[in-house]
Amino acid sequence: MFVTHLSCPKCSTTYPSERLTQLCACGAPLLVAYDLDQVAAALKKERLKERAPTLWRYLELLPVRDRANIVSLGEGMTPLLPLPRLGRKLGMPQLYLKDEGIIPTGTFKARGAAVGVSRAKELGVKTLAMPTNGNAGAAWAVYCAPAGIEAVIVMPEDAPPIPRGECAISGATLYLVKGLISDAGKIVAQAVAEHGWFDASTLKEPYRIEGKKTMGLELAEQFDWEMPDVILYPTGGGVGIIGIYKALTELKQMGWVSGPLPRLVAVQATGCAPIVKAFEQKQAASEFWEGAQTCAFGITVPKALGDFLVLEALYKTEGTAIAVSDEELLEASALLASTEGTFICPEGAANLSAAVKLRKSGWIGANDRVVLLNTGSGLKYPETVTVQPPVLMPGDTLPA
Amino acid sequence: MFVTHLSCPKCSTTYPSERLTQLCACGAPLLVAYDLDQVAAALKKERLKERAPTLWRYLELLPVRDRANIVSLGEGMTPLLPLPRLGRKLGMPQLYLKDEGIIPTGTFKARGAAVGVSRAKELGVKTLAMPTNGNAGAAWAVYCAPAGIEAVIVMPEDAPPIPRGECAISGATLYLVKGLISDAGKIVAQAVAEHGWFDASTLKEPYRIEGKKTMGLELAEQFDWEMPDVILYPTGGGVGIIGIYKALTELKQMGWVSGPLPRLVAVQATGCAPIVKAFEQKQAASEFWEGAQTCAFGITVPKALGDFLVLEALYKTEGTAIAVSDEELLEASALLASTEGTFICPEGAANLSAAVKLRKSGWIGANDRVVLLNTGSGLKYPETVTVQPPVLMPGDTLPA
Repeated sequence: MFVTHLSCPKCSTTYPSERLTQLCACGAPLLVAYDLDQVAAALKKERLKERAPTLWRYLELLPVRDRANIVSLGEGMTPLLPLPRLGRKLGMPQLYLKDEGIIPTGTFKARGAAVGVSRAKELGVKTLAMPTNGNAGAAWAVYCAPAGIEAVIVMPEDAPPIPRGECAISGATLYLVKGLISDAGKIVAQAVAEHGWFDASTLKEPYRIEGKKTMGLELAEQFDWEMPDVILYPTGGGVGIIGIYKALTELKQMGWVSGPLPRLVAVQATGCAPIVKAFEQKQAASEFWEGAQTCAFGITVPKALGDFLVLEALYKTEGTAIAVSDEELLEASALLASTEGTFICPEGAANLSAAVKLRKSGWIGANDRVVLLNTGSGLKYPETVTVQPPVLMPGDTLPA
Repeated sequence: MFVTHLSCPKCSTTYPSERLTQLCACGAPLLVAYDLDQVAAALKKERLKERAPTLWRYLELLPVRDRANIVSLGEGMTPLLPLPRLGRKLGMPQLYLKDEGIIPTGTFKARGAAVGVSRAKELGVKTLAMPTNGNAGAAWAVYCAPAGIEAVIVMPEDAPPIPRGECAISGATLYLVKGLISDAGKIVAQAVAEHGWFDASTLKEPYRIEGKKTMGLELAEQFDWEMPDVILYPTGGGVGIIGIYKALTELKQMGWVSGPLPRLVAVQATGCAPIVKAFEQKQAASEFWEGAQTCAFGITVPKALGDFLVLEALYKTEGTAIAVSDEELLEASALLASTEGTFICPEGAANLSAAVKLRKSGWIGANDRVVLLNTGSGLKYPETVTVQPPVLMPGDTLPA
């Protein structure tokens, strides 16, 4: 393992990595630091293609000391799909979808869970708790089962129902709360303090982000170590965008990629857009968004702990932040499915609406290589499709 | 392309492969024949690892002439997961799950659709129709969208609801029928005759099976070209088991694998077990199963067109056929998820119940390498999990 220590991006305090650690004493999330020179010496990027198509192909850039602690369900190396038909229609001939629907548990949350749970197992965690909008909780519940870790999951009562079943069948302890993920977070914080559990809340432990980082590593490898121009990302807690930024920065330090980083775009829903508001006001952090509501439930995060890291990634890459309405994103979802066949989640569909707007405004150019990062499968959101098919009797005939 | 012709496994009549063809004149399904010597000369198996992790890595063994006709959503190279914890518990230390839940549309049906639709596009199909228990129809609808093919899908009203949404959002024309897949099949046969559509019913066109075949190719590659001892497969229409048998037979002819083929096991539900009944009576074909019913809806097929091919695969590999109850398979699903973390579909879970029975009877030995082929994700069957979590108010506390 090439991890050297944990480091606070706010106050620069460092912590040893071989002890269970949550936040920095200053309250900020901790990031994992590697000896990147050693990684570059130990691993040649050309060797990667000999490895199995999972995120563990990047083991040297991941925080697990002993392979025996790895809990894997085959996650990673999700498809990077060109969208030629849709791209032509929208004036973006180099439009791509990174499809995180094709992964265990059906969302990108599997990455954070696979790496986070493996590391938690390595460091001796017996019980962990987390608030969630559904999919992260489901993923952590699922990976905790083979790790032998007890999982306590708290999610809003209004969260989509399928993740409940995933938690239950994996043997996790599940609670619903009449409130938002922020209410679930307070309940978890209290329980963790009382019972001595490990707090697996977004960014309250340093390893989930390392799993999410692999989306950036895969994008670089799938583009044959040339970076795309723009990456759009639906932003709730923001770990994905922080992770991709971290990945590409590490690869650059290792000399595996060069040139400017892709412009990162944080996409939010108009019903919950704290990052967009902060970006427009050129702030370093966001404010709590009152009355948050959107059908893209996964990005209903009124105030993210890592907001300042998301905003930093946007500023440093000359990116942007943009909000789209529920109506727009549902329309985009149907357009994508009927043109390219991919049925994606509402959060992912928000990217497409955002790309259309940014193309119209000229912020995205006709020659840009544009990646829509779809965070999950539409199969987990059946309620977003309305369907009233005719019902036949045996022996009926069909019209031409 | 190395396809030489189409061939009838029943009467040996051959047909050219460059013309749209449905069944043999004798009524049996047609199989695709390749010049396997040429394939073996053109492709070294060691080169495969340089290719992208999709089923198209086996292009030389697939029926597409022009790559431009390939419609792909990144399907294939699904994980082969060791199940060490469950295996120890059940006295099968070499137990594996081939997880077809991690694929576009969430089921193995994506394979048949990707290859079948690509070939249909290549041969000029404009409209196709098919009866389905849900997932095959959804997969064909999804792949038809980027192919520019109109899809007409007919499924039982009792089929699980999620595939309806997949059909609708992809722009397919969907009908429900108050009956079984056999009733849907009659309606499609009538419509195809009247309107001149292409009939994409199971085994009524020769190419779907070529897509399913790639499960066998992947298994061989993932086991490093050593075949496992036993493969259990949930059997409805039977295309998967026929495909795996065809794949391994082709690989053997090419000299890529050697030794006896794995013993193939057709797993059915006690509520619909025509293949099991035929196998027990040593018949060459099955009889229509009256009053078919099981929660493993995908295998509710009262009489499969390819039943004789399934039975031949069982007899020739010294395999077997076995039925399990709905109660047993739902229990197996929960056992798997809580032990290994994987949430699979009821059809896939039936394999686990079957493996337990066959281990107890001694048919499966302690040293056998046993593969459970899970055909789809549990996410498409949320109704199979019962969950009644406690509902909290903001500020509530959690018990230890």
